[in-house]
Amino acid sequence: MSNTLTGALIIGQSGGPTAVINASAQGVIQTALKADCITCVLGAAHGIKGVLEDKLYDMGQESPAELDLLQFTPSSALGSCRYKLADPDQDDTDYKRILETFQKHDVRYFLYNGGNDSMDTCNKISKYMQKVGYECRIIGVPKTIDNDLNGTDHCPGFASAAKYIATTCAEVWHDAHVYDTGMVTILEIMGRHAGWLAGSAALASLAGCGPDLIYLPETDFDLTDFLDDVGRVYRNTGNCLVAVSEGIHHANGQFVSEAKTSATDGFGHAQLGGLASQLADAVKMETGAKVRGIELSLLQRCGSHVASRTDIDEAYLAGKAAVEAAISGVTDKMVAFQCDRENGYRCETVLQPLDIVANIEKKVPREWINASGNGVEQPFIDYVLPLIQGEANGPKENALPRFARLKKVLAK
Amino acid sequence: MSNTLTGALIIGQSGGPTAVINASAQGVIQTALKADCITCVLGAAHGIKGVLEDKLYDMGQESPAELDLLQFTPSSALGSCRYKLADPDQDDTDYKRILETFQKHDVRYFLYNGGNDSMDTCNKISKYMQKVGYECRIIGVPKTIDNDLNGTDHCPGFASAAKYIATTCAEVWHDAHVYDTGMVTILEIMGRHAGWLAGSAALASLAGCGPDLIYLPETDFDLTDFLDDVGRVYRNTGNCLVAVSEGIHHANGQFVSEAKTSATDGFGHAQLGGLASQLADAVKMETGAKVRGIELSLLQRCGSHVASRTDIDEAYLAGKAAVEAAISGVTDKMVAFQCDRENGYRCETVLQPLDIVANIEKKVPREWINASGNGVEQPFIDYVLPLIQGEANGPKENALPRFARLKKVLAK
Repeated sequence: MSNTLTGALIIGQSGGPTAVINASAQGVIQTALKADCITCVLGAAHGIKGVLEDKLYDMGQESPAELDLLQFTPSSALGSCRYKLADPDQDDTDYKRILETFQKHDVRYFLYNGGNDSMDTCNKISKYMQKVGYECRIIGVPKTIDNDLNGTDHCPGFASAAKYIATTCAEVWHDAHVYDTGMVTILEIMGRHAGWLAGSAALASLAGCGPDLIYLPETDFDLTDFLDDVGRVYRNTGNCLVAVSEGIHHANGQFVSEAKTSATDGFGHAQLGGLASQLADAVKMETGAKVRGIELSLLQRCGSHVASRTDIDEAYLAGKAAVEAAISGVTDKMVAFQCDRENGYRCETVLQPLDIVANIEKKVPREWINASGNGVEQPFIDYVLPLIQGEANGPKENALPRFARLKKVLAK
Repeated sequence: MSNTLTGALIIGQSGGPTAVINASAQGVIQTALKADCITCVLGAAHGIKGVLEDKLYDMGQESPAELDLLQFTPSSALGSCRYKLADPDQDDTDYKRILETFQKHDVRYFLYNGGNDSMDTCNKISKYMQKVGYECRIIGVPKTIDNDLNGTDHCPGFASAAKYIATTCAEVWHDAHVYDTGMVTILEIMGRHAGWLAGSAALASLAGCGPDLIYLPETDFDLTDFLDDVGRVYRNTGNCLVAVSEGIHHANGQFVSEAKTSATDGFGHAQLGGLASQLADAVKMETGAKVRGIELSLLQRCGSHVASRTDIDEAYLAGKAAVEAAISGVTDKMVAFQCDRENGYRCETVLQPLDIVANIEKKVPREWINASGNGVEQPFIDYVLPLIQGEANGPKENALPRFARLKKVLAK
């Protein structure tokens, strides 16, 4: 083939981890290890930092059986980072360092798995390598539980978090309805600017145990309306289960979770309670109800034991497609999903320009949220439901998940 | 048989729910429905309150397929209560009311599923019925995630919570180690007076991803020692994962979680943050580390999607054994487990006097906790590990757990 490019490949993981980012790494690594033109498959320790520090693991040294377990292993097996490259026109130190590492290992393929910032990193490196005339194919692989990347139907990682949230919501619903004395329970769910995750709690309604109220960051939050909503449900049913996105904000843009800092303890420290506790306290003062605030915290993004099989498979597919595209000569693109939900669900990978995600956060469409801004509509459910299908069913050891154990042998 | 007693049976659920208390109910209901001498199987709505209010569901009206799903359904399907009966010598109002309900439905079997207080309820009712000459066989079925009941090897409900905690700990370990910048993560686990649940986080160590430090209520908590411990681990490894029982207390007996009430906000309200946030804040001030406090809250007791198959089977067995004992003429007993961990694990039911649980909380033996009071020893692991074996693998609908849906038809 005229566009055959021979050399090493680097895969890096960036940003907040998910339950399936390692499935994408597995897709990249296993596809690349089989490719004749790829001389060595390198895993960057802590994303771009590993490239800057020449800390690269030789993935060819790993046992194939352990690589197979990556799909069931939460978090970022290679380590992650939140490192933002400077504008190369102002400071090209990092880029020179990256070029050195690329040259040292004859790296001709750079695949980066992350969100907005990672695609920006890919874009900047790609432009720099073109400028200095170093031939290298650069492909982004999307991931984020927040599901807010533009240019793709959805993001790997979102569905498993959504499945965790819906499952947990259904279970908590049962627990919260056990006494005849009533309770208001508030689940705090991740999602700083987009409500995809909090909205996914509504899937539990399919089992008759969904939240009574859901608040997303796509609409302004009003504490009085919230207390009215909760009070009404509580009075009518004796119970109320609420899902709130951590990113809910007042009309002036201030996060509700930040408002609490006005109340400090005697030492001037900000109150420790999270958003869920804060809202629960407000409900308690207003209604006198027994309340409980529950923050799903890290659990929702690392809950691989309840990951979506669809999500795992698609995450793997995204990694595989990235390698195949790069080998075929593509560069400067992000793998994205194009899905069809008519007549069953189908998902295929497409390639999008890297900058398609720049400066755009894909939010829940306003028409998928109810008029009162306290719940989601059927199109939201129809969108998410196909994504959470199937069970991970990963192997167990000592009755606990058997996660991949990598040797992480540094490449010389 | 000379001791054949014909009449109705009541099953009630009491106290905090678990992932498998409904498996015990299923064991009771399905065994009782097959028994010739039991004319009607009644489920008490919200435990003893349902008996007092004559709110009893006719379990014979339920679909057998739905009853089969009880084993996978968290929380208390019949509803629970925290109602303590008065001393009958001082006030026998409740007992008269219970007798009326028993007489109305010809109840000759009363099975109560709960912890300490439930066994006390059984005991008091049994003594009263004997006093007034009403023949009724009364058997207690144990449950509690806290595992603190005396007279039984362990309690149904504990193992599934332990499995949830260990699984979650292993997942969070991976998430908390993803950056090279380090983090101190504190998991707050239930257990007010006994550390069985917090100690179970140590099972994740079998997968190499257990907590670095564990604090149980069986030893006094010293904040200075705690900060020294965490600081040392954090400096040596760049990370620290801590499991703490909600019940840790200072040497003077005061709960650490209560100490925070000395700091109130400007309105005089107690701070909202739970123990995990409180300790995380103390670590942050001491070490400057990035910290995160995570309270497992209700999730750990209703996480039926990751329940232990062993726990489900044993909970069912306890319910079944209770009915069989009562039919055979036994009364005034609690079903308990007697286990053998030599040459594999075996568990059989035995019958104990109801008052064996009174005023005794079974705590983690001091010798199962390390000398420094910040971890557990091998005997603890050997005790818990057999209990968490096997997966629930309950049915799914819409990719979410399919819980039992009872009709709850009131008995006339």
